[in-house]
Amino acid sequence: MQARRHPSSLQVGILDVDLCGPSIPRMLRAEGKAVHQCDSGWVPVFVDQEQSISLMSVGFLLERPDEAVVWRGPKKNALIKQFVSDVAWGQLDYLVVDTPPGTSDEHMAAVDALRPYSPLGALVITTPQAVSVGDVRRELTFCKKTGLRVIGVVENMSGFVCPHCNECTNIFSRGGGEELARHAGVPFLGSVPLDPELTRSLEEGRDFIQEFPQSPAFPVLAAIAQKILNETPVQLS
Amino acid sequence: MQARRHPSSLQVGILDVDLCGPSIPRMLRAEGKAVHQCDSGWVPVFVDQEQSISLMSVGFLLERPDEAVVWRGPKKNALIKQFVSDVAWGQLDYLVVDTPPGTSDEHMAAVDALRPYSPLGALVITTPQAVSVGDVRRELTFCKKTGLRVIGVVENMSGFVCPHCNECTNIFSRGGGEELARHAGVPFLGSVPLDPELTRSLEEGRDFIQEFPQSPAFPVLAAIAQKILNETPVQLS
Repeated sequence: MQARRHPSSLQVGILDVDLCGPSIPRMLRAEGKAVHQCDSGWVPVFVDQEQSISLMSVGFLLERPDEAVVWRGPKKNALIKQFVSDVAWGQLDYLVVDTPPGTSDEHMAAVDALRPYSPLGALVITTPQAVSVGDVRRELTFCKKTGLRVIGVVENMSGFVCPHCNECTNIFSRGGGEELARHAGVPFLGSVPLDPELTRSLEEGRDFIQEFPQSPAFPVLAAIAQKILNETPVQLS
Repeated sequence: MQARRHPSSLQVGILDVDLCGPSIPRMLRAEGKAVHQCDSGWVPVFVDQEQSISLMSVGFLLERPDEAVVWRGPKKNALIKQFVSDVAWGQLDYLVVDTPPGTSDEHMAAVDALRPYSPLGALVITTPQAVSVGDVRRELTFCKKTGLRVIGVVENMSGFVCPHCNECTNIFSRGGGEELARHAGVPFLGSVPLDPELTRSLEEGRDFIQEFPQSPAFPVLAAIAQKILNETPVQLS
């Protein structure tokens, strides 16, 4: 039987494997922080006061923030392997791995490095347009080829409610993510609307959950998180 | 002295080096078309009736459109080299190379393969948010490192004018592209607004220039194209 736990007691690691575009440090207001060495490896950066969320990103290893990571595949593969095995993650309840788009070195390296830990699966994000859905269809094929389970599909940038007149415009079309999930036989987890408060939070490293609970994207993100938690061994009270 | 030519008489090649997400065939309504072999190499696909725009994309080489291109760097490099040297492009006035985001194998391979042709330079696209601007700052550093001139910076997804009330919302912030260009000392070419008619055109492979000349993105795109043409040896009448 699992003990029921409060969400804030969970230990969550975030691994940013977007080596050419490491954006997570800024989004979590951890830009410019340093990664230290300890006996058991690199110490990730804690991004909250409770020290429950730890982050590792190539952004912490660059001397200057505008430095270009001009690396070919083999070097990227080696670093991602190190990020999994040589970081002192400690005991984690979840490790969230953020990849760039595509199905290339970063993805293969992450899948290979994480295989011994039996990952829960891939959360696949698309925008509603057919061009994006096409890319993501290829990512689903990648998951199948590499034996990685698909937790579900999320549609992002799905409609925009004008804050001036409350009318909704589907700037990037709508419904492509849901149709893709149905077609691929994987769960559809929700449609996240375009939300200036969400982009502002990510832009300024603000805490969206604390500051914008009335925002249109909030209930959708909360429901998606709950669906993922529901199928994991950690029970929340 | 250069002869003055009408824009429609130009021969333009488009090379899609986004190997994991080849979206151009759909955007130009060329999905499912086949690439043939001739004595001088692969024959690119003509996407207009006048046969003035030719396209090469890995999308034409896949057996099924949802096939994942799960390739590591060296294989990608080899294909991009082939796309430049083994495609029967014919006499071109312009070759436009569309890359995925980042500064990795595709970018190095394209820069290396095109170097003998003295490329005009890189057109660098960002969205307005700081996270995106950060990635693009790294791309500018990449251009500097590889000796590739920067033609200019374009800000995409820059503000949305609600079609219901005509009020503008900066969904993804605004002005990041212009500031970046100023900071890097490269020209800023313009801000393209979020425009449902533009996304619909790309989605459905429709001819935006013919069908939506009244659209908010149209004059901006035309002005950007003109600025690029102004500094090239081809003179338009």
